[in-house]
Amino acid sequence: MIGKLNHVAIAVPDLEAAADLYRNTLGATVSEAVDQPDHGVTTVFIELPNTKIELLHPLGENSPIAGFLAKNPAGGMHHVCYEVDDITAAAEKLKADGLRILGDGNPKIGAHGKPVLFLHPKDLCGTLVELEEV
Amino acid sequence: MIGKLNHVAIAVPDLEAAADLYRNTLGATVSEAVDQPDHGVTTVFIELPNTKIELLHPLGENSPIAGFLAKNPAGGMHHVCYEVDDITAAAEKLKADGLRILGDGNPKIGAHGKPVLFLHPKDLCGTLVELEEV
Repeated sequence: MIGKLNHVAIAVPDLEAAADLYRNTLGATVSEAVDQPDHGVTTVFIELPNTKIELLHPLGENSPIAGFLAKNPAGGMHHVCYEVDDITAAAEKLKADGLRILGDGNPKIGAHGKPVLFLHPKDLCGTLVELEEV
Repeated sequence: MIGKLNHVAIAVPDLEAAADLYRNTLGATVSEAVDQPDHGVTTVFIELPNTKIELLHPLGENSPIAGFLAKNPAGGMHHVCYEVDDITAAAEKLKADGLRILGDGNPKIGAHGKPVLFLHPKDLCGTLVELEEV
């Protein structure tokens, strides 16, 4: 079912400092910051040859990553995103296997404009997993 | 400096259950478990089309991931590994920029038989980063 690793998301307390670190110290290709008000985050993408790192910073009140940064003030790995061909079929299979989909249990349109769902970390080795239909 | 994402490592409390989950529920290609006594871990690789997920489980006493699992009993994302062409040059550049290399500050031979180093998570947005020369 799962295909490519679309991205690894890292929540950071200082987006500019993190982007500078990846650009200047690690020598990677780093995008401009983009506010995603519908998702409560500002994102910066690190473009690697085979996948992406998504830097996440809270935007506005009730950001979904505010709690994570309160627990991890230095930042940390927040989730991994795997690509799937058919997110509806994936959701059915995962629910049948007993995995919990966060929210109302159905795919949503994610920060990249594509259908996504998030799986409960307790069902996946303590790892928050996003699936994105591509 | 950094090239491809070589792998994302996830520490898991039950290696067989985690491998089954990735193989049967997520439908991925999963390797057999390999003990790495010199590194204090048993590893399973999830082969994705563009990168790998490395499942880590403690092996023997003094495993370097025992403390992580004590703090995260359900498991969790442990590190990311980026590829570099020249690990000696990378180590010099990173030290000059003030980043701390774990251990004695020099690259070592890693679990995959290649020169690696680990950078202090506090210097990299709370993320433990491995660099591997390829």
